[in-house]
Amino acid sequence: METIWFDAREGEVCFIDQTKLPVASAVVRCASVDRLIEGIRRLEIRGAPALGVAGAYGTALAALRSRADRMAAFLAELRTEGERIRATRPTAVNLAWGVDRVIHATESAQTVAEAKALAMSEAEAIASEDEQACRSLGRHGASLVPDHATVLTHCNAGALACKGWGTALGVIRSARALGKDVRVIACETRPLLQGARLTAWELAREGIDVEVIPDAAAAFLMRRGEIDLVCVGADRITRDAIFNKIGTYMHAVAAWHHRIPFYVAAPSSTLDALHAEREITIEQRPRDEIARCGGVTVVPEGVKVRNYAFDATPIDLVTAVITERGIFRPPLDFEKMHALRSI
Amino acid sequence: METIWFDAREGEVCFIDQTKLPVASAVVRCASVDRLIEGIRRLEIRGAPALGVAGAYGTALAALRSRADRMAAFLAELRTEGERIRATRPTAVNLAWGVDRVIHATESAQTVAEAKALAMSEAEAIASEDEQACRSLGRHGASLVPDHATVLTHCNAGALACKGWGTALGVIRSARALGKDVRVIACETRPLLQGARLTAWELAREGIDVEVIPDAAAAFLMRRGEIDLVCVGADRITRDAIFNKIGTYMHAVAAWHHRIPFYVAAPSSTLDALHAEREITIEQRPRDEIARCGGVTVVPEGVKVRNYAFDATPIDLVTAVITERGIFRPPLDFEKMHALRSI
Repeated sequence: METIWFDAREGEVCFIDQTKLPVASAVVRCASVDRLIEGIRRLEIRGAPALGVAGAYGTALAALRSRADRMAAFLAELRTEGERIRATRPTAVNLAWGVDRVIHATESAQTVAEAKALAMSEAEAIASEDEQACRSLGRHGASLVPDHATVLTHCNAGALACKGWGTALGVIRSARALGKDVRVIACETRPLLQGARLTAWELAREGIDVEVIPDAAAAFLMRRGEIDLVCVGADRITRDAIFNKIGTYMHAVAAWHHRIPFYVAAPSSTLDALHAEREITIEQRPRDEIARCGGVTVVPEGVKVRNYAFDATPIDLVTAVITERGIFRPPLDFEKMHALRSI
Repeated sequence: METIWFDAREGEVCFIDQTKLPVASAVVRCASVDRLIEGIRRLEIRGAPALGVAGAYGTALAALRSRADRMAAFLAELRTEGERIRATRPTAVNLAWGVDRVIHATESAQTVAEAKALAMSEAEAIASEDEQACRSLGRHGASLVPDHATVLTHCNAGALACKGWGTALGVIRSARALGKDVRVIACETRPLLQGARLTAWELAREGIDVEVIPDAAAAFLMRRGEIDLVCVGADRITRDAIFNKIGTYMHAVAAWHHRIPFYVAAPSSTLDALHAEREITIEQRPRDEIARCGGVTVVPEGVKVRNYAFDATPIDLVTAVITERGIFRPPLDFEKMHALRSI
């Protein structure tokens, strides 16, 4: 299954519309950067690694569409377009990283034509590296999953969140590829229910045993001894904290309380060596994601709503971070992990 | 605001249909026990103390409707009807308690006419005691709420969950009546969103500052220092555990982790001296409450769902239980608390 790809013949960034799953599997085709930005904002495409690829393809699309005939004008335009894409979602580091890598790749070009080719090949390299990284981190992580394990996961850190294979779900896929029997408890993940809609969908279609629970039931299942380990993705990893979908921190606290391992699976592109937790903006999303449910008003008019997209989990509560380079236990050695040094 | 009442002229149990709030404020009128049972099953009427009153009114309704002309037949019929009402929801202790009190009140009657009158007056006594109990426990609990406090609550333990005033929200109302400034963070409470729909509605209409969050965000707000105390209701309190809406345990673990007081507010009718946690059946509710959201399918067909209505929080995580008789810190002295000795 491919989540996002570039249709070179049509010059369009294409992705599966994740807001329509599991009812329909529709493809969005973006012929313009504006349409891609809209898709990112509406979460038609989401998931930190997939956003890295979207940022890269979006910047390549901007490059291909440019009418500039001189490099200075071309680069100025590309930087402006890149800035617009980066600004769409502030917390996930991969989006900015994907944009920046493509811009950087064009900077050495002598001509605009050469720059366009470099942009495209860099974007494709990012996409291909992402899938390879997921498969590598899956292999590392699989060693942490006992046979007959029940794994709790939150949100969707699966193939749909990446170019393919997945991070947290990549670990589960890799464990299964080794012949291990693995069950998954998927937290539904309010407000947009990516766990119910996406994680359950992509696991069930591969015949992986998955059960959906409300987010608030996870700690109780831990108390009943039903969870062997927690594995989640990440949108940004600083030295002191893991940023991931709201609810991740709660699961980490509950896992700590019950002495259950808590693993975070993410490619190295998620590591941010430049910032500390307190410097990161937690994206707040629209009120209606919570106040309306399937078109029905569930929060009375005029009542305030707090809709953080992410939370931050202190690194002390994390048993290990799994990347394509191996398994890393806190305190994290960012040198060894090849953390990003410019974003 | 009255949540549930008996219309003596029409011979009907009436209640606000809580499945329609906050969009509409409709009243359900039950001329039959069957209709009341349907309303309890569909959660049109819910909340432990309100279920106690519903059980009492329902049994009184069965008494009034009885065509038996001799006491033996009358009592046999009343016990059968009472058993049907009790069986509707197994975890909340108050429902069975309300039924049993009314049946017990009729047993000393000499005639069916006398028994019917006794059933009705016992049911009205239960309803009136419930509201008084909420006001008393509110007064006790208010002493635990600091001025300018932000209180986290889960589900709806408000006037809508009782005859009036509320338990956890009764504590907040009483603190406010003392002139204290109190803010409320209401967890939306998946799957049926009683926090968003009911708690926000009843607090906002009284001008109490309330903000709705997804359940999974509560621990993160504790980490940010935004929560001063947690106050929830209970559906059953045994010596070793508090049974309340799924998610309560998670909040208790998070409050423990952050050293935030965790209070449980419930009338004495919620105390169960006869059972231990392991003996209590946790009600599981229909798949579609989670799998469909506002009429939209959100869990793919064929994927399992676990829908516990309640969880159990070990008493060690509870700072204090607030009843109409005072504030009780664990280990609970059930003698002093006048726990129920027959259910």
